[in-house]
Amino acid sequence: MKIADKHYRSIWFNQEAGKVQIIDQRWLPHEFRVVELASRADFAAAIRDMWVRGAPLIGATAAHAIAEEMKRDPSNTNLDAAWDELHKTRPTAINLRWALDEMRNLLRPLPEAGRASAAHARAVQICDEDVECNRMIGVHGLEIIRRIAAGKAPGEPVNILTHCNAGWLATVDWGTATSPMYHAVEAGIDIHVWVDETRPRNQGAMLTSWEMNSHGIPHHLIVDNAGGHLMQRGQVDVVIVGTDRTTAHGDVCNKIGTYLKALAAKDNDVPFYVALPSPTIDWAVKHGSEIPIEERDGEEITHVQGRLADGSIGTVQISPDGTPGGNPAFDVTPRRLVTGLITERGVCAASPEGLAGMFPEQVSQQTNAG
Amino acid sequence: MKIADKHYRSIWFNQEAGKVQIIDQRWLPHEFRVVELASRADFAAAIRDMWVRGAPLIGATAAHAIAEEMKRDPSNTNLDAAWDELHKTRPTAINLRWALDEMRNLLRPLPEAGRASAAHARAVQICDEDVECNRMIGVHGLEIIRRIAAGKAPGEPVNILTHCNAGWLATVDWGTATSPMYHAVEAGIDIHVWVDETRPRNQGAMLTSWEMNSHGIPHHLIVDNAGGHLMQRGQVDVVIVGTDRTTAHGDVCNKIGTYLKALAAKDNDVPFYVALPSPTIDWAVKHGSEIPIEERDGEEITHVQGRLADGSIGTVQISPDGTPGGNPAFDVTPRRLVTGLITERGVCAASPEGLAGMFPEQVSQQTNAG
Repeated sequence: MKIADKHYRSIWFNQEAGKVQIIDQRWLPHEFRVVELASRADFAAAIRDMWVRGAPLIGATAAHAIAEEMKRDPSNTNLDAAWDELHKTRPTAINLRWALDEMRNLLRPLPEAGRASAAHARAVQICDEDVECNRMIGVHGLEIIRRIAAGKAPGEPVNILTHCNAGWLATVDWGTATSPMYHAVEAGIDIHVWVDETRPRNQGAMLTSWEMNSHGIPHHLIVDNAGGHLMQRGQVDVVIVGTDRTTAHGDVCNKIGTYLKALAAKDNDVPFYVALPSPTIDWAVKHGSEIPIEERDGEEITHVQGRLADGSIGTVQISPDGTPGGNPAFDVTPRRLVTGLITERGVCAASPEGLAGMFPEQVSQQTNAG
Repeated sequence: MKIADKHYRSIWFNQEAGKVQIIDQRWLPHEFRVVELASRADFAAAIRDMWVRGAPLIGATAAHAIAEEMKRDPSNTNLDAAWDELHKTRPTAINLRWALDEMRNLLRPLPEAGRASAAHARAVQICDEDVECNRMIGVHGLEIIRRIAAGKAPGEPVNILTHCNAGWLATVDWGTATSPMYHAVEAGIDIHVWVDETRPRNQGAMLTSWEMNSHGIPHHLIVDNAGGHLMQRGQVDVVIVGTDRTTAHGDVCNKIGTYLKALAAKDNDVPFYVALPSPTIDWAVKHGSEIPIEERDGEEITHVQGRLADGSIGTVQISPDGTPGGNPAFDVTPRRLVTGLITERGVCAASPEGLAGMFPEQVSQQTNAG
């Protein structure tokens, strides 16, 4: 989407430089920095240390990482070593494994001499497919917003609450949860977005707010605690979030705290939608309780990064020395709390039947594999 | 409770100095500062700007403020002016109004010459009553923890989740939600406390963690998003929170985010208790939806204070320039989500009948007033 009227993606291959470039998201919202990823260590660090984040963008970055490795050394040994090193950077992210498998399965049968160009072409294609996929999520999600807008008094915006950053910065473009919002704005529908801060890493405060600002969408930043109250008082019309992994039965693994918003939405009859590209669906897992939850460093809890009064980036410790942080990074929202899943093919129920109806070829694959 | 082995209250009258002293909680957990409150403006600032916070401590501070005013000028004019200035500092806090009314009703009938000493005696007594009240909350709450502990395997602690700071720093001593915890530790029961950070002002990170550290109680600081997940995975045995105002029907107004934890507790069959001294009950209000919710400055959302690497206290901005913060400070947990209310007289249901049974004299007062 746009930054100061110029269109960007979150990752791209710069033809002139002959290098992959990304927006280094660690410096947002205070600085806009573009960096090159040159070595395998760069790519691994970019994923592990969250220069890039968001399930689809992690997958796209991993695909480009394999492509760059193939230019350097197209051997099977190197292909496997790259797969291993990249896979361990973010074990919960299903798109990471999907992209790595996609690349390896493509490259293995090819002669070494043909791997670099094939890998590059496929990495670029994965990015383009992601853009198209997210565009279609927006097309389908727009209809949900349009229906809500039709029931509003003139001049009243549709109030949308979102958690974390399932924005274009988390994908290659458009975003997942934000794609319906960008489409609504393009369609001339008044919207207002409640942006959950999303502790501990503040992706809402730092990234989603920045996206909304850059695009000129009316919004308020709120703490993660506030959404339930806003729903009780009728100030939220719909919740739209993304997901890091959704099971074949429709349980939704997403950034920690999503489950609490889903409970509040249910309690207040606010529709709760999850926007997801189909690679985010883990067809091999039925129940959310089977998903391993990443436990991250406690210092993410005890320290907060931001911009100091002098403009520099600094970190403050908010708790006393000696207090440890507990840091589960994701939670699982049971499908009974989910109104619908917004996919690139349309909106379906968060249920085995809903997903199977939307992606019948996946179900037959799983049946054959089983 | 204890700080470095010395016993403190959160407010006291220093006989030698002839002045009221408080712990200036704005500097916790990084610095322990005691300050004198000399003028009416000092007292008003202390309440409004949260040098002191927590419903009972706000009430105690207001009582001392009136007492100090009476030493300076015991006229009705000054009494009313002090009542007005102090009342507007924190409109949601029911204990503030309770203490101010208590003092004015006591002083109005007295000759001006007798007001200073009577006011001082009553302010000291309000503090002592608060300490005794909170001690009894702990005595009753201890039995809840003891029953849970009895069902645990040897060596397994009772896991307690709490939100905000309903600790001794929020009262004169013992705290409300923390009093059962301190009593459990004194009784030799192993406990472990999950401390909710409590954005936006981080009272959990800054105050409850500091209390737990000072007293040597095992704990982890978690983000407000994490509690639901921990409950889903069986890592929370009981939730105990405080309240800023509870209605005669048992609806609980407390720090923003409490409602979300109550929803998660209900969804996972985790008992959810609210600890409260009876002055926190607003007998004139039935339904939580009638309670006005304070909307605070948006900068509390966009900026976070803490200790910088060099040891100084600093503030970081976490969101982009141009993003406004929405900041409702409290929410209401409906009584259907509350397992029980822990009062100084015992534990009762969060219902009109439960509260009326525990405080029959209040109900008859309300009936007479009506």
